[in-house]
Amino acid sequence: MPEFRRDSITGRCVIIASNRSKRPRHYDDQTDLAYSLGCPFCEGNEHMTPPEIYAQREAQSVKDTPGWLVRAVPNKYPALEDDGRWNEADRSIYGTSPGVGVHEVIIEVPRHIVNIGVLDENQFINILRAYQSRLNTLRTDPRWRCLLVYKNQGEAAGATLEHVHSQVIALPFVPKEVRNEITGANRHYRSTGVCFYCALNRTESVGGTRLIGSTDRFVALCPFAPRFPYETWIVPKRHSASFESTSNEDICDLAHALRNVIIKLNGALQNPAFNYFIHSLPQESADLQYHWHIEILPQIVKAAGLEWGSGIHLNSVSPEDAARLLRETPP
Amino acid sequence: MPEFRRDSITGRCVIIASNRSKRPRHYDDQTDLAYSLGCPFCEGNEHMTPPEIYAQREAQSVKDTPGWLVRAVPNKYPALEDDGRWNEADRSIYGTSPGVGVHEVIIEVPRHIVNIGVLDENQFINILRAYQSRLNTLRTDPRWRCLLVYKNQGEAAGATLEHVHSQVIALPFVPKEVRNEITGANRHYRSTGVCFYCALNRTESVGGTRLIGSTDRFVALCPFAPRFPYETWIVPKRHSASFESTSNEDICDLAHALRNVIIKLNGALQNPAFNYFIHSLPQESADLQYHWHIEILPQIVKAAGLEWGSGIHLNSVSPEDAARLLRETPP
Repeated sequence: MPEFRRDSITGRCVIIASNRSKRPRHYDDQTDLAYSLGCPFCEGNEHMTPPEIYAQREAQSVKDTPGWLVRAVPNKYPALEDDGRWNEADRSIYGTSPGVGVHEVIIEVPRHIVNIGVLDENQFINILRAYQSRLNTLRTDPRWRCLLVYKNQGEAAGATLEHVHSQVIALPFVPKEVRNEITGANRHYRSTGVCFYCALNRTESVGGTRLIGSTDRFVALCPFAPRFPYETWIVPKRHSASFESTSNEDICDLAHALRNVIIKLNGALQNPAFNYFIHSLPQESADLQYHWHIEILPQIVKAAGLEWGSGIHLNSVSPEDAARLLRETPP
Repeated sequence: MPEFRRDSITGRCVIIASNRSKRPRHYDDQTDLAYSLGCPFCEGNEHMTPPEIYAQREAQSVKDTPGWLVRAVPNKYPALEDDGRWNEADRSIYGTSPGVGVHEVIIEVPRHIVNIGVLDENQFINILRAYQSRLNTLRTDPRWRCLLVYKNQGEAAGATLEHVHSQVIALPFVPKEVRNEITGANRHYRSTGVCFYCALNRTESVGGTRLIGSTDRFVALCPFAPRFPYETWIVPKRHSASFESTSNEDICDLAHALRNVIIKLNGALQNPAFNYFIHSLPQESADLQYHWHIEILPQIVKAAGLEWGSGIHLNSVSPEDAARLLRETPP
């Protein structure tokens, strides 16, 4: 069973999951193929994963066999397990808690594709719908206080399997990075009466120097204080706290916006490794002003001693330069 | 001029330093050599760096020429510059400050050595004395509120030059990771009456499961909640807030302890990339209880979407297993 541990001095939370050291590595720098023999995510290899919990399938196809477009399965080497009870109370120096939660994999396409940028817009729509479906299922369980969808593409971004996939994790508490953002967004709203992200969209859309582009419903921009070169956020134009409740029209337009950004990053930076994640309000609450968004972090430089030792990110590409290059790169 | 920028929602501080994008890369996976032609840190290439600000030299040798053992120079592509005034007051959404500070490089050895683990104990003593000398010089300037020594070894740890070197940075404020630790250490002291790190040393030294080893004056251990597999801390046995005021005897014993740990990591993990940094109390203050130490972070797995999106580190090697392997690896 994995374990939550807390550094009692800094409050830093880690998950110790020794079972994950047994994960296979499947990274052969293959280009996109129809099928890869040893890949557990390829169509035809469904027996290599735990039984599916969600799929978009052809009408006559059978669970855990070929015929799917997007497929979700429990992570075979989970960071968290849906078993036991989270122990919030133990705040002692060596306080631990069972690693209670959910850890799923969303296999984005049946073919052995290694770069999501080659997928068409319909495939992006399918993937985003899969995210939404899993999140809406998981949020019915009151034990989960925060849901996070994230994607690691490329070894330099921490992926161990090259076949394109995302992950969904359900946590029994709201973790630091999410909590900080929600707290900050609310503080900003209370002190100014406007939503930070709504104001950001307006500022950047009207002659902003960090705008990459916009679609009907989304703005893509480089944030003012980016951790990484070419860090990009995709922010809905409409004020909305939660990705899970996004409309079908929003999903279709987001597919367009997200695909455009990834193609631009691929073109400008020669298919960089990257992480992205969706920050969405954990629980709907009339008290909390939040504005969901996607953060995309290209991993072309490494966090180093300065970053880990101080928390300050050193970035040698200004977001204004990054946005200019990405604006000029064709989608 | 570099620039400090603050994300107004999370409070995250970044440094935008576009000049650093011009840095040369010198990483040829060379093994240790007497001399490498294009390496700015090799003896004989002193003209390739800014003029030295510190060196341990042979008696008759001349500044910026061969004959040194350890040499410190300003970083040619500095993250911060000693020019202008830090603008603490601007807390607006797009508040920035000139990137005021100091950024130095400590070149650890004249030969083209790419792994600090091959150096002998005397060379470690020289390097630690260089750290101490630079820190003690920099701390006389009241503008610098925090000094950080850090080392990146290996490309996966963010190094762009392979010749072994460390960096010293002087900051006009106490950054998040340092502040959190000092705040937490003081909270622990106030609530228990004992220093966390003193208690940690005692606990781990007497049958602790996370002890790697100890010398006369230092304990090497894996922390209870490590961010990375094989994360290792070196903690002085004597309660002491600041590395800068460490005695000569301490430096000699620390050289022994640090070299042992690096040789063990090299043996157990086949010369991993790693970062280390020294956390030391920024300013001596009778009010603050702190206990300086070194944190060594092997970089054999990448921080990924979960880490960046939530702040939770997922670690597949328990510190108990890591410490056992490192205990059993000969120094």
